[in-house]
Amino acid sequence: MSSSSDTIKYVLDETRIPRFWYNVIADLPTPPPPPLHPGTLQPLTAGDLAPLFPMSLIQQEVTGEREVEIPKAVRDVYRQWRPTPLYRARRLEKALDTPARIYYKYEGVSPAGSHKPNTAVAQAYYNAEAGIRKITTETGAGQWGSSLAFAGALFGIHVDIYMVRVSYNQKPYRRALMESYGARCVASPSMETNSGRAILAEREDHPGSLGIAISEAVEMAAQREDTKYALGSVLNHVLLHQTVIGQEAMAQLEMADDYPDVIVGCTGGGSNFAGIAFPFLGAKLRGGKNVRIVAVEPSACPSLTRGKYAYDFGDTAHLTPLVKMHTLGSVFTPPGFHAGGLRYHGMSPLVSHIADLGLIEARSYHQGPCFEAGVQFARTEGILPAPEANHAVRGVIDEALRCKEEGVSRALLVNLCGHGHFDMQAYLDYFAGKLLDLEYDEKELAMALAGLPSVG
Amino acid sequence: MSSSSDTIKYVLDETRIPRFWYNVIADLPTPPPPPLHPGTLQPLTAGDLAPLFPMSLIQQEVTGEREVEIPKAVRDVYRQWRPTPLYRARRLEKALDTPARIYYKYEGVSPAGSHKPNTAVAQAYYNAEAGIRKITTETGAGQWGSSLAFAGALFGIHVDIYMVRVSYNQKPYRRALMESYGARCVASPSMETNSGRAILAEREDHPGSLGIAISEAVEMAAQREDTKYALGSVLNHVLLHQTVIGQEAMAQLEMADDYPDVIVGCTGGGSNFAGIAFPFLGAKLRGGKNVRIVAVEPSACPSLTRGKYAYDFGDTAHLTPLVKMHTLGSVFTPPGFHAGGLRYHGMSPLVSHIADLGLIEARSYHQGPCFEAGVQFARTEGILPAPEANHAVRGVIDEALRCKEEGVSRALLVNLCGHGHFDMQAYLDYFAGKLLDLEYDEKELAMALAGLPSVG
Repeated sequence: MSSSSDTIKYVLDETRIPRFWYNVIADLPTPPPPPLHPGTLQPLTAGDLAPLFPMSLIQQEVTGEREVEIPKAVRDVYRQWRPTPLYRARRLEKALDTPARIYYKYEGVSPAGSHKPNTAVAQAYYNAEAGIRKITTETGAGQWGSSLAFAGALFGIHVDIYMVRVSYNQKPYRRALMESYGARCVASPSMETNSGRAILAEREDHPGSLGIAISEAVEMAAQREDTKYALGSVLNHVLLHQTVIGQEAMAQLEMADDYPDVIVGCTGGGSNFAGIAFPFLGAKLRGGKNVRIVAVEPSACPSLTRGKYAYDFGDTAHLTPLVKMHTLGSVFTPPGFHAGGLRYHGMSPLVSHIADLGLIEARSYHQGPCFEAGVQFARTEGILPAPEANHAVRGVIDEALRCKEEGVSRALLVNLCGHGHFDMQAYLDYFAGKLLDLEYDEKELAMALAGLPSVG
Repeated sequence: MSSSSDTIKYVLDETRIPRFWYNVIADLPTPPPPPLHPGTLQPLTAGDLAPLFPMSLIQQEVTGEREVEIPKAVRDVYRQWRPTPLYRARRLEKALDTPARIYYKYEGVSPAGSHKPNTAVAQAYYNAEAGIRKITTETGAGQWGSSLAFAGALFGIHVDIYMVRVSYNQKPYRRALMESYGARCVASPSMETNSGRAILAEREDHPGSLGIAISEAVEMAAQREDTKYALGSVLNHVLLHQTVIGQEAMAQLEMADDYPDVIVGCTGGGSNFAGIAFPFLGAKLRGGKNVRIVAVEPSACPSLTRGKYAYDFGDTAHLTPLVKMHTLGSVFTPPGFHAGGLRYHGMSPLVSHIADLGLIEARSYHQGPCFEAGVQFARTEGILPAPEANHAVRGVIDEALRCKEEGVSRALLVNLCGHGHFDMQAYLDYFAGKLLDLEYDEKELAMALAGLPSVG
């Protein structure tokens, strides 16, 4: 019962909430390739995006400035849960008997339980500032939907959430959270949109997909002056908003008189990973300390490790611009593993570009070993991670075990992007031995990759 | 979007975690009546409790000292989430258009999501120190069970949790959380104990009750040298451990340059209420500022507002000592409302004594208006309260509305004892209009009260 093996918390006071979001594009040797208009194949203009986003967010999407000031009203909301704690996981270190120093940044303290409100609040603020009264979005597992619902409630914006029908039916508790915040949840495909009606006409009991839900949300936003659309990951401005995570972690590690040798994050669309990694990557690119950055993705949806770096659509219905990214093909359907937040066929174009530059590593795991890691984390550190975060935890535990093998003490930093309170069915399945290490269909992947649009 | 209406957070650094638990008995004009041995009706001795609790906790149960030092090992665990934040709910104040200053202390930041780990960690520590290898307990809704499971994992103690069978079947996600922490959950009544087997012999499909689960847990603990029993509320030492809440709140209100005119907490067994209220009550009793203290309980289980202050058993099977408390009768069965943590037939003897001394007020609400308050809280402050906490939120909102009516600005302090992430079915029922304002059976209450043991 010696305290020398107990968890240490590094707390910053609210004056240390970052004043700027950090834009890694300013420090990259080359800028990422531009998104293209799907019709003309010409680089997208700000005007092309204007029906969907307020101009302030479009400017953030394309800016090359290193720092973007965080509005005071956004920082005022952030301070309810930011700065989030950084922990030294000494109980986990002891259980692993590793010489590694494991630090975790915990984003689950936000009201919605993940890092998503960092951008949801910013997006709701800019939309409110532009006089927007309604935002449409899609959600799969529900982390993003509940975060935008929360942010909408604060800024007086109505939020309509197109939730993949199978999730809508299987995850009533996530839906209840969104409705508690006052948002409206619609099972997608729905009868509210042309795209929804067209799909239901073909198949009345269609289970829906993220691609269809995006189409519905985009269609509704494009039709109305007072309505815009919001996305919870992938885009540059979303990754930008998440950089408060890494900036705070940097200050907290300074309190610990330490600096990470390795940073680990899980990747679906790429936003929580970018949030913790980009500020450290930028410091390195500006001549600072070296750091290995490891992206962990599910083996069943391995865009970074098995995808092709190519121009592709962001949705299955091909309504979005073409973006260059690591993709499994927009028609690829990953099997139904539990980390719903990582079930996306592509990767953020900015993360993809950085991977292409060789600035980060990528690794994939099946869900079984990830849940094993998550349970070990819960039993030592007390926090039950979300299935998505379990991937990052698996990654950092393996780095710690490598330190043990090599007899080297390294500082490891991992982003614990959310708690698993709304994902308990996955843990029940794990304990019951029903959690399968799902494989994608090799043939389907080959076909999806063969069907990529030919650009440039 | 002015920041003048945004939530304010008052943060203490970890050096401000209290060093002592505060024992209000030292400041009361008279001590509470002693618990009695159920056989002899004589005051209980420490030896009577020795089969169930380690001596250190028995000493805390009976001590008259004002301060009990918190062991360093317990403070080391506390610092993972303590000091918990105190918030000024300015977004809620604005929505209510009230001149009141509403402060909420948020205990949901603990790994298990409520105030319960404050005592679970202490109890696990003292048991580990005494060489105990296993703790048995009961749980209804599961907040207590998951907290003790978490604490057991940290101190290397196995935890066996007898969970009321109907909850075991209806709340698999709470069970999954307990199992994630490594505890063993047993549906009660079970075939593992004499009391369980006896009940199952009479009725194979018995749904169980908290009283039966207590009997099973007590029976298992009493049989084995290396096994003890733990309770999550009601007892003096449990309330003692919760006083870190009020002590921190006092320091945080000092940061805000304020002092509460009214303190509101919900009461089931009484521990979260005592935790926030007793330090302020003690200050008042020692000649400090006056403060109104309001206990809020469910109308369907109104021990303080409708019960009798009398000696009664703590369980339905009559295995426990007799304690003097506000009770609805140990055979009283409350209807199945959602705040499972408030479904207890009695009230902590210490809270009951203090109520009898006229030092606190009590008030009851039906669950409908409580959920209405909880949803309003979620939409303004972002945190979705547990059904139990909704009672306190209802209470403080009504105090704030009274301030508005009277045109008076008072400082209101409420304990937000836990989040509702594992209680979403209740919110779904509320939104679906299926949440009934359940009434207890007047005739059953009269009979239960008539059947109280005749003591003294």
